[in-house]
Amino acid sequence: MKQIYVIGIGAGDPGQLTLQAVEALGRTEVFFLLDKGEEKADLAGLRELILRRHATGPHRVVTARDPDRDRAAPSAAYAPAVDDWRRRRADVYERLIAEELPDGGHGAFLVWGDPALYDSTLGILGEVHARGTEDFAWSVVPGVSSVSSLAAKHRVGLNQVGRPVQITTGRRLADQGLPDGVDDVVVMLDARQAFGAFTGQGLHIYWGAYLGTPDEILLAGPLDDALAGRIRAVRAEARARKGWIMDTYLLRRTDEG
Amino acid sequence: MKQIYVIGIGAGDPGQLTLQAVEALGRTEVFFLLDKGEEKADLAGLRELILRRHATGPHRVVTARDPDRDRAAPSAAYAPAVDDWRRRRADVYERLIAEELPDGGHGAFLVWGDPALYDSTLGILGEVHARGTEDFAWSVVPGVSSVSSLAAKHRVGLNQVGRPVQITTGRRLADQGLPDGVDDVVVMLDARQAFGAFTGQGLHIYWGAYLGTPDEILLAGPLDDALAGRIRAVRAEARARKGWIMDTYLLRRTDEG
Ligand SMILES: C[S@@+](CC[C@H](N)C(=O)[O-])C[C@H]1O[C@@H](n2cnc3c(N)ncnc32)[C@H](O)[C@@H]1O
Ligand SMILES: C[S@@+](CC[C@H](N)C(=O)[O-])C[C@H]1O[C@@H](n2cnc3c(N)ncnc32)[C@H](O)[C@@H]1O
Repeated sequence: MKQIYVIGIGAGDPGQLTLQAVEALGRTEVFFLLDKGEEKADLAGLRELILRRHATGPHRVVTARDPDRDRAAPSAAYAPAVDDWRRRRADVYERLIAEELPDGGHGAFLVWGDPALYDSTLGILGEVHARGTEDFAWSVVPGVSSVSSLAAKHRVGLNQVGRPVQITTGRRLADQGLPDGVDDVVVMLDARQAFGAFTGQGLHIYWGAYLGTPDEILLAGPLDDALAGRIRAVRAEARARKGWIMDTYLLRRTDEG
Repeated sequence: MKQIYVIGIGAGDPGQLTLQAVEALGRTEVFFLLDKGEEKADLAGLRELILRRHATGPHRVVTARDPDRDRAAPSAAYAPAVDDWRRRRADVYERLIAEELPDGGHGAFLVWGDPALYDSTLGILGEVHARGTEDFAWSVVPGVSSVSSLAAKHRVGLNQVGRPVQITTGRRLADQGLPDGVDDVVVMLDARQAFGAFTGQGLHIYWGAYLGTPDEILLAGPLDDALAGRIRAVRAEARARKGWIMDTYLLRRTDEG
């Protein structure tokens, strides 16, 4: 039986690898790297460093192109386009497992952060597995997410005592505002800097970019116009310098305001 | 300057330790173990195993009693009682750092899972640090949470594409129902098995107990009365056998129902 690992590799710091992940990396004979096109050089760099250090067994690396989403599809066709995209991706993953992994072999997909957060690998492999056309076992090695990393660097909890925390996207925050009944909101995938719309409301922001990497930037404080402006400026400068940015933040409402 | 590490040790499996955590454990000279009274033997067991394997430098273990919360306080006095409890806990932590850690020494607090989720250590150390009476630096080593562990074992993501996920407590779920606008809710600290009130609503449940330990139990499926009853029965049986239980679950609403 073929064995597939989905390995969470942490969100930027190679020290965030777990012992479990190191063990799985050492057992892996075939690493599947999906070239997502928009992939950032630094991310690929972390993956390479991890392979260099921890792919200690005889192994090879198979690179495939992750099918592009058809962004040109008219918006009425949005859902079918996504379905079609998923199916094409599943086709690629299925073919990789069928053709590139020998019987009894161990293959691995490396996933940024924790595979359970805003990543499609589990959904796609689940679909391939459900098709039943390829016989394989698969397991997931959880990882330290950028959310945990953000909290650790700011030395704060994600929730207040007995209270909930919500993890959401920049798009949703921009479209729907702050969710009801929640004092702590972690925002990921925010290209629009949605936090800017929530100044002067007694919120505190804990912001972090390139967490765990040598370029890490942290900013925190009461979310007023000055701090929002400062984050925007720092973000724009860093993005211009590096060519890309990866940031996330926690918005917190406290009794003290 | 004294250096304090707050180290996330993962949620049950010693393989969830990160390389960063292993490094910090190896550098630590004084481990502070807080006896929380209600502590479960298996949890203490994991901590001991981790120290045996990874506390590789010369070190000692200092055990202190975490002050009891005054549960007898009348409910009108609830908030002041919590404040007082926090202060007494901060006093204990401050004294440990002042008296048990030599200048220039490395001390550590080991925290179950990820220190950012439903754990008071960061809040207490933050308070001690803010007092400014003891001079120390402190940093947090993030860990794999039971939430990530749950998702990994069930091989599912925590969120659906572009959608939020909320992490909350059993008490809140029981009191307030399912939060609006969220299709994925992770429930922790649920002594009342609040999921029982949400059968027949098209939800899917992914339940896990003793995750990452040899006693791990997983159950999942459409949340109907049969499955709710089965989880209750399995939970009661395991709890009776072991004397305690630690469980968490994801409630998911999907389009397919
Ligand atoms: C596609 S999601 C993947 C999340 C990943 N699975 C995790 O657990 O962190 C990418 C988003 O995660 C956040 N992110 C990931 N790594 C980060 C880092 N090192 N610093 C800041 N944000 C990060 C950003 O919000 C980014 O838009
Ligand atoms: C006080 S909270 C601490 C959470 C911890 N900081 C973390 O990151 O997982 C304890 C709750 O976490 C969940 N939990 C922790 N470890 C678990 C495990 N191994 N299996 C199932 N649930 C667990 C349970 O819901 C439990 O009531």
